[in-house]
Amino acid sequence: MSTTRVRVQEQTLRVLAGNIFVAAGCSLEHADLIADALVWANLRGFDAHGVSRILRYLELFDSGESNPAPDITVDQTRSAVAIVDADSAPGPVALSTAMDHAMSLARTVDIAWVSVRGTVHTGALGYYTARAADYGMAGMGIVAGMPTLGYPGRGGAVVGTNPLSVALPAGKHQTVLLDTTTDFSAAPELLPPSVIPSHGIGGAGTSLVLELLASGLASNPIVSRFHSDKPGGRRHRQNAVLMAVDISAFVAPEEFMATVDDTLEAINRLPVADSTTDISYPGEPGVRTLQERRVDGIPLHVQLLDDLETAADKLGADVPSDFR
Amino acid sequence: MSTTRVRVQEQTLRVLAGNIFVAAGCSLEHADLIADALVWANLRGFDAHGVSRILRYLELFDSGESNPAPDITVDQTRSAVAIVDADSAPGPVALSTAMDHAMSLARTVDIAWVSVRGTVHTGALGYYTARAADYGMAGMGIVAGMPTLGYPGRGGAVVGTNPLSVALPAGKHQTVLLDTTTDFSAAPELLPPSVIPSHGIGGAGTSLVLELLASGLASNPIVSRFHSDKPGGRRHRQNAVLMAVDISAFVAPEEFMATVDDTLEAINRLPVADSTTDISYPGEPGVRTLQERRVDGIPLHVQLLDDLETAADKLGADVPSDFR
Repeated sequence: MSTTRVRVQEQTLRVLAGNIFVAAGCSLEHADLIADALVWANLRGFDAHGVSRILRYLELFDSGESNPAPDITVDQTRSAVAIVDADSAPGPVALSTAMDHAMSLARTVDIAWVSVRGTVHTGALGYYTARAADYGMAGMGIVAGMPTLGYPGRGGAVVGTNPLSVALPAGKHQTVLLDTTTDFSAAPELLPPSVIPSHGIGGAGTSLVLELLASGLASNPIVSRFHSDKPGGRRHRQNAVLMAVDISAFVAPEEFMATVDDTLEAINRLPVADSTTDISYPGEPGVRTLQERRVDGIPLHVQLLDDLETAADKLGADVPSDFR
Repeated sequence: MSTTRVRVQEQTLRVLAGNIFVAAGCSLEHADLIADALVWANLRGFDAHGVSRILRYLELFDSGESNPAPDITVDQTRSAVAIVDADSAPGPVALSTAMDHAMSLARTVDIAWVSVRGTVHTGALGYYTARAADYGMAGMGIVAGMPTLGYPGRGGAVVGTNPLSVALPAGKHQTVLLDTTTDFSAAPELLPPSVIPSHGIGGAGTSLVLELLASGLASNPIVSRFHSDKPGGRRHRQNAVLMAVDISAFVAPEEFMATVDDTLEAINRLPVADSTTDISYPGEPGVRTLQERRVDGIPLHVQLLDDLETAADKLGADVPSDFR
């Protein structure tokens, strides 16, 4: 594979991705959502969750593991929780639905927990939690996925990477955005199968607990079925939890955001310990990359451009004239 | 300090600790709660959060940083959230109050988030989350404490250890109990001040986010004031969040607990990877220690026994006859 990279503007990528998803059977609204989530990740440097995944989405549509035209239902049990049955919708569609529902619930009951059953490829989890922070709420999320990580004492891939994300609105500063999607392990699905990262009992145990919370409450266990001989046990799927917290139920939002600002500034004022002067808060490195890529474009391998063009041609999707 | 250890039975320790806290001005109910939380930690091998802390509690009472007779108020804003103002109550009193309130709320609105403002020394966080699991709920908790951890690029203690805990009820198995109180760093307050553990941007960033969530929503920032020249900025205090989730709002509890059992058993059946045959789930090592210490007693340094006896004598608290 050529390692040459070419810069493509974000809007061009969004249009191409949207065209491809519409041609693959998604509604215009869903296609735009998926395109936006993937380009959001590329803009922040999370390239493993960016447009390179378009080809994987198409494979999942072809195999029937994902549904381009899902019948998503929201089961609202009582006041503060709901279950979104994703009908194998792509992650950006299912998790955006869930976070929107959580924010709407939290406006009336202060906090909401929305479980997502049976989606695929949720991508960069920060995309959904940051949406809550954009509306002045605290957003939280967890995802349970297919086993890719080791567990101390057992061989092979045992549990998923199972990211956790928290987004908090700041006043003068950027949103504080913790997203362990990439921290927990650098896209293990891109590593050779013989390399199974393990994070000791701490990391693996955390992953196990998040699987039980996300998949157990959604009645869609992943780990137990993956390691069974049940048919479909290894069919690709993910579950999630998205939470929204209405900050104004606790404290005036401007006071909360001032606390965030003051805390970031207090740490920044501390004496520099070593040559690392470039101190970062969760979310800050992504924003630095965003600022650069908004101007200079998103660097993509030439091979990926070829593959995306081929996929678009095959589906009869328009390729924007400035794509190359 | 002598390193000789003596075994003391759990009930003897509970009685001694309760007597000391009553003599120090706590109500009988609060004294029993604090004693139970400390001995709970000892029984599970979390000795840094056990009865060795009694002396520290007494210091905090003496300095006025903690209040043995607090006026705890619960501010119930709307339906699913509340704020417990701890009035500097010891952690076991404040956090037990908060978790009980969270469980009671969750029974009517499925999920509850209770913030705790201004407590001290919350101890082993799993004590409170496990209480929810004992009642068939999922329990979650975070604590924000005084800075003890480094932050990449800045010198000294910048953020707190800020543990996270999740407890989930199992069917045939022990409660799955994740408690990063001890995982995140081995009781850094027991290390020499020159040793400031750091966990890279991931760990420090997670800690920062938990501080903002727990302390920001409770209107009681710790990190920003600690690093300021404000009077009282370094006065010992902690904030917390406790959550309870009513599993039956999502799925039949017996189905959830069967998923937990099936998942633990599926992992246990996997081929052994190395000499580590002793596979552990979160909470399991603590239960193994519990089973042993319930029978053989809790090993304590002779020096600690001396110190506890001296403290009891000074306060006029009865020392059980079988203490030594």
